[in-house]
Amino acid sequence: MERSGRVSRAMSREARLGRVAIAGVGLIGGSLGLALRNGIAREVVGIGRRRESIDLAQRLGAIDRGTLDFQEGCKDAEIVVVATPVASVVDVVRVVAEAAPRAVITDVASTKAEICRSLAGIRTFVGGHPMAGSHKRGVQVARADLFKDAVAILCPTEQTDARAVSTVAAMWEAVGARIVALSPAEHDRMIAEASHLPHAAAACLVRTVSRDALRFAATGYADSTRVASGDPELWSQILLSNRFEVRRALEGLCHRLVELGDALLAQDAEAVKRILSEARDLRDAFTSPPQARSGE
Amino acid sequence: MERSGRVSRAMSREARLGRVAIAGVGLIGGSLGLALRNGIAREVVGIGRRRESIDLAQRLGAIDRGTLDFQEGCKDAEIVVVATPVASVVDVVRVVAEAAPRAVITDVASTKAEICRSLAGIRTFVGGHPMAGSHKRGVQVARADLFKDAVAILCPTEQTDARAVSTVAAMWEAVGARIVALSPAEHDRMIAEASHLPHAAAACLVRTVSRDALRFAATGYADSTRVASGDPELWSQILLSNRFEVRRALEGLCHRLVELGDALLAQDAEAVKRILSEARDLRDAFTSPPQARSGE
Repeated sequence: MERSGRVSRAMSREARLGRVAIAGVGLIGGSLGLALRNGIAREVVGIGRRRESIDLAQRLGAIDRGTLDFQEGCKDAEIVVVATPVASVVDVVRVVAEAAPRAVITDVASTKAEICRSLAGIRTFVGGHPMAGSHKRGVQVARADLFKDAVAILCPTEQTDARAVSTVAAMWEAVGARIVALSPAEHDRMIAEASHLPHAAAACLVRTVSRDALRFAATGYADSTRVASGDPELWSQILLSNRFEVRRALEGLCHRLVELGDALLAQDAEAVKRILSEARDLRDAFTSPPQARSGE
Repeated sequence: MERSGRVSRAMSREARLGRVAIAGVGLIGGSLGLALRNGIAREVVGIGRRRESIDLAQRLGAIDRGTLDFQEGCKDAEIVVVATPVASVVDVVRVVAEAAPRAVITDVASTKAEICRSLAGIRTFVGGHPMAGSHKRGVQVARADLFKDAVAILCPTEQTDARAVSTVAAMWEAVGARIVALSPAEHDRMIAEASHLPHAAAACLVRTVSRDALRFAATGYADSTRVASGDPELWSQILLSNRFEVRRALEGLCHRLVELGDALLAQDAEAVKRILSEARDLRDAFTSPPQARSGE
C-alpha cells in the first residue's frame, strides 16, 4: 500500500467491481454508493433498518436498489461494506459473514482494535476507516466526491485474506482515496490523539466554562469547542470503543495542563513562553491535509 | 452602564473629545486611532517606542502625529489610552499619570486585577478591556470598525474618579462599543474561562498529539488548536498576569477530563452519553456574539 499516485490512478481506471452491498446508507455509506455508481461497481445494493432511509438513498441515487433483509442484500455481493455505527459493526459483520461467506467484508468505523480482535476469525473481513466525514449525518448530506484525496486506513491482521485486502484497497482507490496500512492498535492510538482527543477535550472545555463567562466568549472559544457539537450517541460509541487509548490521551493532556498551571503559579515566564512557543511552532507547521478535511 | 442602545447612540452622536493620546499604536491602539479620527476626537497623538511604527501609524491614518516622548505625547490630552502589552501597562500608566496629572487614563489589557490593584492610587485611571482583536498583530491590520458592536469592559474601583469613568465610557461608545462594568476580579475570572483557558488548552492539546498521529489530524484538530498560533510573548504575559484564575480554570478542565476518562474506563455508556449531550447542548446554544468576534 501507500502506492504511488501513478499506480493508484492506473488501478482506478481499471477497477471494475461487481455487486457491492452497503449496510447502513448514511453519510459514509451513501457517499460511497454515489461514488461507486459512477461506473465503478456493476450494482450497489443498500441494506437498511428502516424502509424510509432506504427509499431516500435510492431516490438520491446512492444505491441501485435497497432491502431490509441482510440475506437478500448480501446475495452474490463481491464486497459488503458495513457502514453502521461503531457499536453494531461486530454483530453486523458476523451476520454478513454467515449470509455471504464468499464476499469480502469491510467496515468504516473510526476505531479498529476492538472490532478487529472480535472478528479475528473471519478471514474475509478487512477493518477499514476512510478519513472523511462531516458533523452532519445522513444520506441527504452524502457526496460522490467525499473520498476524493481522502486517506483510507486499512487494518489487515496476519489472519486476513490477502485477496480481501487488495479488493478493499482497490475499491477505496477507485473512489479517489489513498490507502494507508496500519495495525489496529497503531490506528487506534493515532486516531485517539488526532481525532478522539480533540472531541473529548472540546466537550470537557464546554463543561468547564460557566454561563456567566460565556457572555464574553469569542472566536477562540468558538473554534476550540466546535467539535463538541458532534452527535452524542455516535461519539459515545466511538470513545467507548477506543476507551483505553482515549483515556491515555486524556491523561496526557491533563499532564500538559498541570505543567502549564505549575509554570504559571511559579511565575516561570521562561517556561510559559517555551510552552507557548513550542505549541505555536507545532500548530503553524500543521496544515490540514485536504484528504482529511472532515474526518472523524 | 449597560446603557440602552438608544442612549448609547445618542451619546455617540454627541461625543466630541479633545486630544486623545494613544501609547502603543498596534492593532488595538491603531484601530482606536482610526475610529477616533473619524470626527470623534479633535486630535489623535501616537506615542511609540520606535520611530518606524509611529511613522507607519501616521501614514495609515491611525494618528494625526506621533512622538517617542511621553511627556510631549501626553501634553494637554483629555484621555491617554495605554495600549501596550500587558506586562508594561502598570509602568506606562505611572509615567503617564506623572506627565499628565489631569488626563483621564485607561488601558486595553486583557487582565485587570493585577493592573487595577497596582494602580489603585491613581484615581484618574480606569481599567478597560475592549473585547476585540485578531490573531494578527500590528497597526497594518488595524481597522476603523474593529470596535463596532464590540463589548468594552470597564473595571472602575471605589477609588476611581467618576468623571474619568464616564469619559472613557463615552469614548468607547463613540467608536461603537457597548460598555459592561465588572469588578477587576470578576473580569479576570470570566475572561480566564472564556478566553485564556481556550488558549492555554489549545497549546496543551497541540503538545499532546504526537507527530505520528498528526498525519491523521483533520478539521476537528485544526479548529480545536487554532488559537495555539497566538503570539507566545503576548500570551505568556496575559496568562502570567491572570495566573491564579487561569490555573483554577486549568484545574477545572483537568477535573472534567478525568471525569470523562473514568466514565470511559468504567464503560459507563450512560455517563459518557450524558457528558457529551450536555456539552453538545451548551455548545449549540452558544452563538458567537458579533461584538466578541475575535476578542482575546
